[in-house]
Amino acid sequence: MKHQPLKGFRDYLPEEMIPRERMIETVQAVFRLFGFSPLATPAMEYAEVLLGKYGADAEMLIYRFTDQGGRDVALRYDLTVPLARVLASYGDLKKPFKRYQVAPVWRGESPGPGRFREFYQCDVDIVGTDSLLADAECIQVDQAVLEELRVGAFKIRINNRKVLDGLSELLGVAEPNAVKQLYRTIDKLEGRGEATVRELLAKECGLAPGKIDLVFEYLSSEGDDETRLARLDRLFSSSEVGRRGVAELREVRDLAMAGGVAADSVAIDPAIARGLDYYTGTIFETNLLDLPRFGSVMSGGRYDGLIGTFTGQPTPAVGISVGIDRLLAALLELGRVERRTTTTRVLVTVFDVSMRRASLDVARRLREARIETEVFLGDQKVGKQFQYADKKSIPLVVVLGPDEVKAGQATIKDMRKAEQVQVSLNGLVEAITARTGEKKTT
Amino acid sequence: MKHQPLKGFRDYLPEEMIPRERMIETVQAVFRLFGFSPLATPAMEYAEVLLGKYGADAEMLIYRFTDQGGRDVALRYDLTVPLARVLASYGDLKKPFKRYQVAPVWRGESPGPGRFREFYQCDVDIVGTDSLLADAECIQVDQAVLEELRVGAFKIRINNRKVLDGLSELLGVAEPNAVKQLYRTIDKLEGRGEATVRELLAKECGLAPGKIDLVFEYLSSEGDDETRLARLDRLFSSSEVGRRGVAELREVRDLAMAGGVAADSVAIDPAIARGLDYYTGTIFETNLLDLPRFGSVMSGGRYDGLIGTFTGQPTPAVGISVGIDRLLAALLELGRVERRTTTTRVLVTVFDVSMRRASLDVARRLREARIETEVFLGDQKVGKQFQYADKKSIPLVVVLGPDEVKAGQATIKDMRKAEQVQVSLNGLVEAITARTGEKKTT
Repeated sequence: MKHQPLKGFRDYLPEEMIPRERMIETVQAVFRLFGFSPLATPAMEYAEVLLGKYGADAEMLIYRFTDQGGRDVALRYDLTVPLARVLASYGDLKKPFKRYQVAPVWRGESPGPGRFREFYQCDVDIVGTDSLLADAECIQVDQAVLEELRVGAFKIRINNRKVLDGLSELLGVAEPNAVKQLYRTIDKLEGRGEATVRELLAKECGLAPGKIDLVFEYLSSEGDDETRLARLDRLFSSSEVGRRGVAELREVRDLAMAGGVAADSVAIDPAIARGLDYYTGTIFETNLLDLPRFGSVMSGGRYDGLIGTFTGQPTPAVGISVGIDRLLAALLELGRVERRTTTTRVLVTVFDVSMRRASLDVARRLREARIETEVFLGDQKVGKQFQYADKKSIPLVVVLGPDEVKAGQATIKDMRKAEQVQVSLNGLVEAITARTGEKKTT
Repeated sequence: MKHQPLKGFRDYLPEEMIPRERMIETVQAVFRLFGFSPLATPAMEYAEVLLGKYGADAEMLIYRFTDQGGRDVALRYDLTVPLARVLASYGDLKKPFKRYQVAPVWRGESPGPGRFREFYQCDVDIVGTDSLLADAECIQVDQAVLEELRVGAFKIRINNRKVLDGLSELLGVAEPNAVKQLYRTIDKLEGRGEATVRELLAKECGLAPGKIDLVFEYLSSEGDDETRLARLDRLFSSSEVGRRGVAELREVRDLAMAGGVAADSVAIDPAIARGLDYYTGTIFETNLLDLPRFGSVMSGGRYDGLIGTFTGQPTPAVGISVGIDRLLAALLELGRVERRTTTTRVLVTVFDVSMRRASLDVARRLREARIETEVFLGDQKVGKQFQYADKKSIPLVVVLGPDEVKAGQATIKDMRKAEQVQVSLNGLVEAITARTGEKKTT
């Protein structure tokens, strides 16, 4: 019989789930702080809800099958298209509709290091407003999440699809597929480097050398944000859509900073293109400066067209997605999370069958005081019970021997310091609280 | 285009997700209090992992398909079989291994009122010990969860598969399928009543009238728990397995009570049989006394054989599952949760474009004080912004007019009392905290 998880999938054992669960709680608390409300949609949708939304390459990765009732169904590929479907299912949702959703998505990609076919998305989206305040708020959320998680320095790189459209206009690239190809090629700059991208622009996009130079003038990262914005403005003297994109970029950056985003945490980056078809305005990615090779840990953008294809009326939207699994991998790599297999703070030993009631009673009182407590669930000798506490790094062990209990006493052994004290049973909870109170990190 | 969720599936809009998310957090906190650690397994497994575990009827409900790589895969049907697979995948997990998992499962059942093809399971399991302390701990967890959730009075009904095996022995029913049929029929007593069950025992189990009387002697609910246990002991004078079951039942009940379970929250109930094949000892169900027709809201039992079929060595286990969606429905029905579409406590209005920075700055300071705050994300007039707060039941609105801000002032409008006060900008956070502090229920 197969004993392994399905190829391309993975388990999360307690050692990783303990920090992961805490991360998700932290991220959700930030989302709520900005006024987002939780939403849940099913793992499965009618296939037609998902098809035609992500582009041909992505669509091949969708898990699609026929259910017991003969329906053509698919597992969700992201949380954005199901959100669009929800907006159509419930027409009376008050706008702006601000929701967060934390849930797994499934993509049949080639598995690789750190890449799995099931992964969690943590998304916030603001639906029903074209105000750039909403775009700026996504950047504020981005900063707040990363600061709460203490992942170190980061850079939120912002661009705008209208800026890219300005570039297409300058280059005379108008056919939709050619435009997509151009964006995909530009998106490769960071990973593949200038020489390769120059080659691809010639071969795959059919650009003449002069136009390729123009692309790299556009992509220049010289100067600070103000310099780059001014350069783009000059470049787009003949492209209205390009200039509008630059104006939006400037306004989003200004509003984000007015909302508390630090100047050195954001950067205008004309090379950001984002793979998905549906973006229409602001787009952003986020990199950790200590771990640049981890790729973007939070990204998103404005997509004013997608939801309208469901609702039948203009429904602008902007959102951002937290790459929770990448962030966990980053925190583990940086050594910023403690690896533990349990959050138990106290093990109450069971001396023998006659002492079970006394142990159960002590455990009950500790739990009433909100102290995570295990009773040893077996009939091994106390020595084995200490080994269990040691192996699981449970910091405190309570020993209740028959003579001790008769005398109204108990022993607390501190496994970290290998020292022990005897306390009265009546003062036990207090004595334990004094030893675990400031240690509580769960 | 389809705009509805897939047949048999449902969305959770914020109004239901807000209390649901809080419930799940509460339940997980109880699990941690008893020393359980989180585990996550994938939504999909190799089909062979799931097949042959649940019985033929259940197996037909499994979502099974071929993935892009030609693998025979299935969506998980519960969290127990994946746990068994995990025990085989990672042989060095320290025992007793105590894990919780909160995740959706999928079953292609006929949808009905309150019954969906995707639902959440919240499970705790204790693997690697046959100590009845573990069985009793599940009952303690059951009580602790229901008390934390404040669902009112409840009854945890306990039985033991060995007690049922004793009954089979007395009746001379030995063939495994006949035994399963007998248990399934007994399980119907509560839903269908004595007359129907008598009929089914004759027709489907082929029992003679005298034996049917014996079944109802066994099922008698007369007297208190001690009386019932004594009656079962007498009934099983010729069945060793029956007497062992009764002894286990007695011990589990005693230990649960020593651990703090109230005598009137538990009951020995020989009619409890549980549908799944894999139980071997203690089994339990839980009913809400105010909402008996909701069925069992927490149930589980001991299954000493299942995990061994994966690990190849005896691996006893016991667990309990919280029916989170049923409990949420119960709390909503009982009116014990507030229906809200947001947890936002303050809306900061945006007077006009020139005032955006001032509004963003105030919102930032409120969020730094951990107050859930929205900035109005649009360019509608302030009147419309008040309507938004009203519609979403946001209790407090901050208004920042140009003249006010110039004078270092802001207005706080309390939407609940339709009253407003002017405060200094410097004292704003404090004034808001004073008004929301004790109202925080998220």
